[in-house]
Amino acid sequence: MSFTFDIDYNDKSSDARAGRLHTPRGVIHTPIFMPVGTVATVKGIHMSELEEVIHAEIILANTYHLYLRPGLEVIDKAGGIHSFNSWKKPVLTDSGGFQVYSLGKNRKITEKGVEFRSHIDGSKHLFTPESVVDIQRTIGADIIMAFDECTPYPCPKDYARDSMHMTHRWLDRCFDQFSKTDTDSAVQQCLAPIVQGSVYADLRAQSAAYIASKEAPINAIGGLSVGEPDEDMYAMVELINGILPASKPRYLMGVGTPANLLENIALGIDMFDCVLPSRNARHGMLYTHEGIINIKNEKWKKDFSPIDARSNADTSRRHSKAYLRHLFLSKELLGAQIATLQNLTFYLQLVRAAREKIKQGVFDTWKEKAITQYSQRL
Amino acid sequence: MSFTFDIDYNDKSSDARAGRLHTPRGVIHTPIFMPVGTVATVKGIHMSELEEVIHAEIILANTYHLYLRPGLEVIDKAGGIHSFNSWKKPVLTDSGGFQVYSLGKNRKITEKGVEFRSHIDGSKHLFTPESVVDIQRTIGADIIMAFDECTPYPCPKDYARDSMHMTHRWLDRCFDQFSKTDTDSAVQQCLAPIVQGSVYADLRAQSAAYIASKEAPINAIGGLSVGEPDEDMYAMVELINGILPASKPRYLMGVGTPANLLENIALGIDMFDCVLPSRNARHGMLYTHEGIINIKNEKWKKDFSPIDARSNADTSRRHSKAYLRHLFLSKELLGAQIATLQNLTFYLQLVRAAREKIKQGVFDTWKEKAITQYSQRL
Repeated sequence: MSFTFDIDYNDKSSDARAGRLHTPRGVIHTPIFMPVGTVATVKGIHMSELEEVIHAEIILANTYHLYLRPGLEVIDKAGGIHSFNSWKKPVLTDSGGFQVYSLGKNRKITEKGVEFRSHIDGSKHLFTPESVVDIQRTIGADIIMAFDECTPYPCPKDYARDSMHMTHRWLDRCFDQFSKTDTDSAVQQCLAPIVQGSVYADLRAQSAAYIASKEAPINAIGGLSVGEPDEDMYAMVELINGILPASKPRYLMGVGTPANLLENIALGIDMFDCVLPSRNARHGMLYTHEGIINIKNEKWKKDFSPIDARSNADTSRRHSKAYLRHLFLSKELLGAQIATLQNLTFYLQLVRAAREKIKQGVFDTWKEKAITQYSQRL
Repeated sequence: MSFTFDIDYNDKSSDARAGRLHTPRGVIHTPIFMPVGTVATVKGIHMSELEEVIHAEIILANTYHLYLRPGLEVIDKAGGIHSFNSWKKPVLTDSGGFQVYSLGKNRKITEKGVEFRSHIDGSKHLFTPESVVDIQRTIGADIIMAFDECTPYPCPKDYARDSMHMTHRWLDRCFDQFSKTDTDSAVQQCLAPIVQGSVYADLRAQSAAYIASKEAPINAIGGLSVGEPDEDMYAMVELINGILPASKPRYLMGVGTPANLLENIALGIDMFDCVLPSRNARHGMLYTHEGIINIKNEKWKKDFSPIDARSNADTSRRHSKAYLRHLFLSKELLGAQIATLQNLTFYLQLVRAAREKIKQGVFDTWKEKAITQYSQRL
């Protein structure tokens, strides 16, 4: 049976759990971090590196971006995203709700859907809950996301309430369309609904109950990590996780720092995605087992120690901080490549370590030490 | 004994030969192409890919660039370029003569040497034949190049003659300095002199005789592939190769297209370097076993055949032309990475094929077919 979830271990002193999400394209061990491959490529990373160095079990791609480029005709003709980019494991596509929210003035949200202008050529497009499901059917990701409005922070309560209700109505339309259609490929897909409600506890509770009522195989939490204090994020997640069924994987969208991951794992989150490790890598900010490094700093100029001696990435053990700094100062492609490998490998090592510590029953004490270590700036 | 050259096979119908150049850091099988790693990185390529995918046997780095950034202090402290970038096989450093020539107005050439301004920060520097040897001693490349003036094309004969004589006087100073100094590392280095003389047969003959008189383990030809017609290049190479000793490897600097490589191999050239395959890759121009491809062209939009089914690079067999086109149109890092792997792997496969055909005694007929095939634009 596809998209079933087995919980292997429950932590005794927190709500953390280690599980296995079964998908038609393989098992995903949770907690998991999903590297972001917006346009069907994780920037600067070869597929073989995702498979053999980072050990990614699922990657994320973006409906909005793929719809605009290369366009559905190309992806359809390729036979779906897995044939197109040759990544054989599971893919999750974000529905475009977040991207549309990012477009600011270039979009108009109505009950029908969202009219927007392409960031590439300014052309006009309309996304509706129905069309976004159809597009994701064509793209062929394993896990597809419902079309929602991601509210900004701060957000007036009235706006957040109205938006949440519209997101719920859109959700019904998404599920209708999903049940009426079938994937283009032979492989089953699953549709995941998204809890909204900004930072308002009553709205979040209401939204979580509505999402839970859909009995989807995976439930997602959106609209967090958009600028609110971490404490607000954790409070919302704790509240929501008390309402979403514990038997289904919970996916917290767009989160976050290593500390954010560990705190949310403790609250019962199973899946994460975020551009932070890959985007920061391209700017020379490294997450390592010793702490956070800005590789461009003068202090690394003659530091010939490995980038991260405990990294699974051979490039991080092979190359020195001084060499990587040189690559960044020289604006060399290889700098971004090595840094991205470092950060994504670190994130996947982190969630695997969390799983292992949950299994060993020492997650809570390990978490505190790990947060201190991995949050310090070197 | 270091830097000895064994000729394994001589082609019967041309001057092509297959040899082995012994260096303290390993054997180089000739004919060979040396990927260009200007600032101690081959742009977009991991060291493991140079080793295991491209199968490079030697790479090139640049004295001028490394002197400016990261600077000699860093490379010295690292223990030389091999420790700095972790490439364990041979390295050749260009002396900076060509870069200085490229600086145009920002340099002044006198008998003493060249005063120039850094392209990075405009700071003033002086390169002399002595200092360039010293710098290359510190960098620690296995094969270091004499400091020369690379004349432009076209070049008045008087200028070419005067410049050639100065390059010869500089060469004496380079050898003096080389004999007075020792490498910073325990590993022996060799100094290669460079034939100049523009496209003037009498000057080239005079220069080749002078260079030959130095009895260096490797002899180089500079000042070609600077804009002159291919026929002039081949005529000069043929003339020079008749004068340089056949028992020593001949290195033709800065050349060239696949056709240029094969024609010059037929004339007795053993070593090449060029930015063409890597630079063109970054602009989407691919050298493949079927011909030359501009991957950005519309015609590849829905072409899901492999980039190059006969490539040793798994990325070229795994990914389609349509996917690579998408990466280029999206300005994704991975596009440059996959294209560079394709082109450098193709160049190394090409010189290895040439070696094999020389060994089999079928080089001449294969060469004609290969040039036709690999020069056609698809």
